[in-house]
Amino acid sequence: MKYFGGIEAGGTKFVCMVAASPDEIVAETKIPTTTPEETIKRTNDFFSPFVLKGELAAVGIGSFGPVDLNQHSNTYGFITTTPKPNWRFTDLLGGVQRRLQIPVGFDTDVNAAAFGECYWIPENKNLDPLLYVTIGTGIGVGAIANGKPVHGLVHTEGGHLAIPHDKNEDPFEGYCPYHRDCWEGLATGPALASRWGKPANLLEDDHPGWDLEAKYIALAFTNLIYLYSPMRIVMGGGVSQHKGLLQKVQLKTQQLLNGYVQSDMILNHIDQYIVNPGLGTRSGVLGAIAIARQLA
Amino acid sequence: MKYFGGIEAGGTKFVCMVAASPDEIVAETKIPTTTPEETIKRTNDFFSPFVLKGELAAVGIGSFGPVDLNQHSNTYGFITTTPKPNWRFTDLLGGVQRRLQIPVGFDTDVNAAAFGECYWIPENKNLDPLLYVTIGTGIGVGAIANGKPVHGLVHTEGGHLAIPHDKNEDPFEGYCPYHRDCWEGLATGPALASRWGKPANLLEDDHPGWDLEAKYIALAFTNLIYLYSPMRIVMGGGVSQHKGLLQKVQLKTQQLLNGYVQSDMILNHIDQYIVNPGLGTRSGVLGAIAIARQLA
Repeated sequence: MKYFGGIEAGGTKFVCMVAASPDEIVAETKIPTTTPEETIKRTNDFFSPFVLKGELAAVGIGSFGPVDLNQHSNTYGFITTTPKPNWRFTDLLGGVQRRLQIPVGFDTDVNAAAFGECYWIPENKNLDPLLYVTIGTGIGVGAIANGKPVHGLVHTEGGHLAIPHDKNEDPFEGYCPYHRDCWEGLATGPALASRWGKPANLLEDDHPGWDLEAKYIALAFTNLIYLYSPMRIVMGGGVSQHKGLLQKVQLKTQQLLNGYVQSDMILNHIDQYIVNPGLGTRSGVLGAIAIARQLA
Repeated sequence: MKYFGGIEAGGTKFVCMVAASPDEIVAETKIPTTTPEETIKRTNDFFSPFVLKGELAAVGIGSFGPVDLNQHSNTYGFITTTPKPNWRFTDLLGGVQRRLQIPVGFDTDVNAAAFGECYWIPENKNLDPLLYVTIGTGIGVGAIANGKPVHGLVHTEGGHLAIPHDKNEDPFEGYCPYHRDCWEGLATGPALASRWGKPANLLEDDHPGWDLEAKYIALAFTNLIYLYSPMRIVMGGGVSQHKGLLQKVQLKTQQLLNGYVQSDMILNHIDQYIVNPGLGTRSGVLGAIAIARQLA
């Protein structure tokens, strides 16, 4: 059994992959996220032939959340209190494991992505802690510390960080239904669209919205740095791919730290410290593959 | 060799202890922090007789910072870029190890305190991640995740978190020389004294300053919760001992999370989630003892 299955379970689509490594991908598909029953059935249909051929050792899942990661809980492996219609308390792990009958690992989408970046990118080995941040429709932070993903009471929810919001500079109220102007409320794709009246990907490169966006991301990044002292921050997700944004974030983070963290990496090599994903847009699903490998 | 040495190296005093456990403390002393030479000499003088009698297996140090925790660095075990006069680039670990000639462990004061709370308090076992927050002359956050203290590029500097500051409500500019109104700039003892014109311990129990203080602490705690999902937050330090503050912080944290983190602990048992130290004011030095035990 030389292959592993990876599932990046997102609110819009499930990305499914069979692979031995990023260099040996056997099959890959994207399944639209409809009802839990249909989506999980189609996911299992994709992997099932590989199981029947005896080629699949294990499957890893990196899921949208909130999820239950407590292995002693009755709802371990469930998507829990999501606002997504029909998906509340969906037994995702169980739905895959009962059909495929092989070991299944489970974590959040962002922890899977963080683990994938650590596991597959040689230059990330020994960069611990490593944080993976996704900035797109939502904002999430995955953390690897002391060799493993960080879990606790529930799991990280980095998008909801409370950060300074100067309402004179930016009167936008914020978009988060729970906290209004938390990081996610100010800086996701939908927040940008709502503030500026058009989708983020249609904002011109020199639109002042990008400086404001970089400021909010950088404010949050200083908090990540103060609380983890990470060896590297990987910035992925749709919004973060906008041309020039990474460089703005690097510079603004350096400015906001204001020399407090006396590290050569931050003072002189910020371009190697805050980086785009080494795995491109596949950090999540290849992270799920890495999680599966840990089970075998 | 049944005993271990612990040093809580602070900017005002060094607390030194010889013990086997919190229930078997053999000797304890407090040495004022003067020059590095004098302070380290007096510290060594305290431990030396126990070493000569062959009773001391190892020493642990929890130090004020910034410190260098990178074991491959030339300045490992040094206090580095501190603003404290005379202490810049002081080889604290080396100064102890060269004289005592036994194994010496080294970490930050807050990581030592967090480790001490995990190691010695039975009900904290398996509460991982666990965060220890000190709120006093400064603010610091120590983190244990996946069984070990979190280190990275440098170490955590949780006091400098960027948090919302409503200048209409609180026109105080902030006290931090690097970031002005970061958490530490708004909520340390000296910030309170500067804002209200008298020392924090002289503010009446019903002074509105305590509600504001609880709000800033709670804002920062929501960020700790979003980034670590800790199993427990231990709140120590001089300011945090003010009567009623813990309860205000518990309530305000719950309010600010606003039901987003669906955990029984937060929704119904916040009084067991945010707690004062199980080791009282000795978390740091007993944590240093725990670090020493790990070496033996």
